[in-house]
Amino acid sequence: MSGGLRVWQDMDKEREALQAWKERVEQELDRVVAFWMEHSHDQEHGGFFTCLGRDGQVYDDLKYVWLQGRQVWMYCRLYRKFERFRSPELLDSAKAGGEFLLRFARVAPPGKKCAFVLTRDGQPIKVQRTIFSECFYTMAMNELWRVTGEARYQNEAVEMMDQIAYWVREDPSGLGRPCLPGAPASESMAVPMMLLNLVDQLGEADEELAGTYAELGDWCAQRILQHVQRDGQAVLENVSEDGGELSGCLGRHQNPGHALEAGWFLLRHAIRKGDPELRARVIDKFLLLPFRSGWDPDHGGLFYFQDADGLCPTQLEWAMKLWWPHSEAMIAFLMGYSDSGDPTLLHLFYQVAEYTFRQFRDPEHGEWFGYLTREGKVALTIKGGPFKGCFHVPRCLAMCEEMLGALLGRLAPAPSPGPGSPAAVPARQAAK
Amino acid sequence: MSGGLRVWQDMDKEREALQAWKERVEQELDRVVAFWMEHSHDQEHGGFFTCLGRDGQVYDDLKYVWLQGRQVWMYCRLYRKFERFRSPELLDSAKAGGEFLLRFARVAPPGKKCAFVLTRDGQPIKVQRTIFSECFYTMAMNELWRVTGEARYQNEAVEMMDQIAYWVREDPSGLGRPCLPGAPASESMAVPMMLLNLVDQLGEADEELAGTYAELGDWCAQRILQHVQRDGQAVLENVSEDGGELSGCLGRHQNPGHALEAGWFLLRHAIRKGDPELRARVIDKFLLLPFRSGWDPDHGGLFYFQDADGLCPTQLEWAMKLWWPHSEAMIAFLMGYSDSGDPTLLHLFYQVAEYTFRQFRDPEHGEWFGYLTREGKVALTIKGGPFKGCFHVPRCLAMCEEMLGALLGRLAPAPSPGPGSPAAVPARQAAK
Repeated sequence: MSGGLRVWQDMDKEREALQAWKERVEQELDRVVAFWMEHSHDQEHGGFFTCLGRDGQVYDDLKYVWLQGRQVWMYCRLYRKFERFRSPELLDSAKAGGEFLLRFARVAPPGKKCAFVLTRDGQPIKVQRTIFSECFYTMAMNELWRVTGEARYQNEAVEMMDQIAYWVREDPSGLGRPCLPGAPASESMAVPMMLLNLVDQLGEADEELAGTYAELGDWCAQRILQHVQRDGQAVLENVSEDGGELSGCLGRHQNPGHALEAGWFLLRHAIRKGDPELRARVIDKFLLLPFRSGWDPDHGGLFYFQDADGLCPTQLEWAMKLWWPHSEAMIAFLMGYSDSGDPTLLHLFYQVAEYTFRQFRDPEHGEWFGYLTREGKVALTIKGGPFKGCFHVPRCLAMCEEMLGALLGRLAPAPSPGPGSPAAVPARQAAK
Repeated sequence: MSGGLRVWQDMDKEREALQAWKERVEQELDRVVAFWMEHSHDQEHGGFFTCLGRDGQVYDDLKYVWLQGRQVWMYCRLYRKFERFRSPELLDSAKAGGEFLLRFARVAPPGKKCAFVLTRDGQPIKVQRTIFSECFYTMAMNELWRVTGEARYQNEAVEMMDQIAYWVREDPSGLGRPCLPGAPASESMAVPMMLLNLVDQLGEADEELAGTYAELGDWCAQRILQHVQRDGQAVLENVSEDGGELSGCLGRHQNPGHALEAGWFLLRHAIRKGDPELRARVIDKFLLLPFRSGWDPDHGGLFYFQDADGLCPTQLEWAMKLWWPHSEAMIAFLMGYSDSGDPTLLHLFYQVAEYTFRQFRDPEHGEWFGYLTREGKVALTIKGGPFKGCFHVPRCLAMCEEMLGALLGRLAPAPSPGPGSPAAVPARQAAK
């Protein structure tokens, strides 16, 4: 067999594998979106039910602000980026969710602090002393502006963004956390991660805002990178304010899915910056390292939490397999491969995607289970709950569909089986 | 075989079974206390390390106030009630723990609010907006007074008790919980349970305080009984302020181990009151009912959480088997049997105790594992952590040893094998 033919055959195999995954991912995205459209819309009050049982039954009507903001964002993003999701129903539901947030999310307007959870009709039940409700509110408003063009949404987004940045970098006292003398000045990686994701969101195709937040993006990236500790051998979830390791369980705490998610946030940042050294470092430290330590050698899947010294974590759920670290890992490895061309990363994508589709998908009722035992058995049958909504699964599927489409587009066409046959084109080039 | 002989033989069998369990429980109590004495004492700062790995290794030096108070209480109780634990080392460690609490537990003295967790040297890290740190502080101080006779401990206990009762019944604003319009006025069963336990603690052999808190005890019992809902078919963990079922997951939430623990608190209350109707009701609703719904028919053991409608709980750990519901169940069933003589309750004690000793004990390093999977595999190898200290296991063992001793004492002596042989007496009648 000639070398040239083998290259053609290898490319053919790769094309087939990518094409097969693109089709699986596309179909799965359709099913997942259909699940949320069928079961989650609150036609009476606006917003979304997210406490959904295995078959979509609403088992609680609480409205978690994180999940309201995320679903608005997701619907708008799908509407904006995918021809087949450009339906009035999706847009109207997103707008109704946005209006619900505008009206009820803030606990004491004009103050910007948002509730964590609301009653079905919008009365606040609980407030978290963190920035995350506000971050998902910002994502929702920015994306609503992008699909509707209405400036009031963008004003909300930018004002909230500036408030969040102020809380993080200037003065956190508005969040209401008490300052106790024994509490170490520590940083959770979630904070700069989330903020970097917002910088990406607000700066998309918006040179002015991209410029406004460029320094903030660099600061976030630098803060996230401080979480690589122990001579580059571990990503730690919490570090001291000045970037050192904290003592005890808090300091040794690891969250492999979070590191992988931070990885693709950082990779997008490095690509925007055109920084090849950072791209390589991110792939090494935030993709390969957390996978190597976080993948369960016995049962497959990513552990939820780990201890950097290999001690037993104190969180009861540490060894469980959650859906979102796996969807983040799929994005991270496919993005890493798209960026670097390193086949190791493509194989890791396949490994994670196979596990994920096999273990988390519910072929009977749609959407994914969220919580498996270490061995991979379904531990909770719910499809949505206080922390699982219409977000990680469809975001993963949508991003993977886009990336797989782009990879297929980059590959040379298959050799013609005979004269006159058209070059192979991916079946549904819907991603844009 | 004559009826009389059969009765003798049955009693013989019962005596043997009780005696065997008394010996197992006694030996286990010795091993458990030895574990904590060997590994948990902070000789430098006073107080206790409670973050202990499988072999007793300290994996974090944080001091959780609940667990500091509980260990002081436990050591004093053992010292006071068991001849073989009347050692200076136990008393000195309890006193050092008490002094640590006196010095550091309160966040802003003379204010009574206590921290939830402190650094090793006593600096506050986190405050919970609940009454529980203060409750365990009170238990520790009252028990220290009982073993030392020093009035300052009792003053602390009574003052804190009055503060707690004020927070619960008059004005909770001192706890710092925000009042949000969407939050239902609800009561967690933990609050009246804990308070009833304190009434029991302070009133022991103290007629004056027993009188002072008699009305409070009745109020607590009445509030706990309000958690029996759905025509007496379910104990619900949270109910509305006026004793109705709350909507959603919060309202349907069940914690079988907590119901069983409330059961023996109530049973002691009913015995003190000499109220036979209440005794029977408690056994039916707080012992038999939670066991019937909460025992896993497939793998044995009590589920941690359940949903009263049989839906899937949203807590990731709902199906795990935790040590403390099992130790509480052992106390509850043995107390129920001691009170009622109903052999069903004795058999349930045996069933729970067999499961518990088989699954939770660590014959290699001592103490018990705290957290098993649904199937009974050890999920966390730690022996102590943020919520597991020197409390539920030794309290269960000590109370069971006392109750088994009393039951054996009540049984007629074994028929003499021959003239002149002494009547059987339990081997080590150490409990008093």
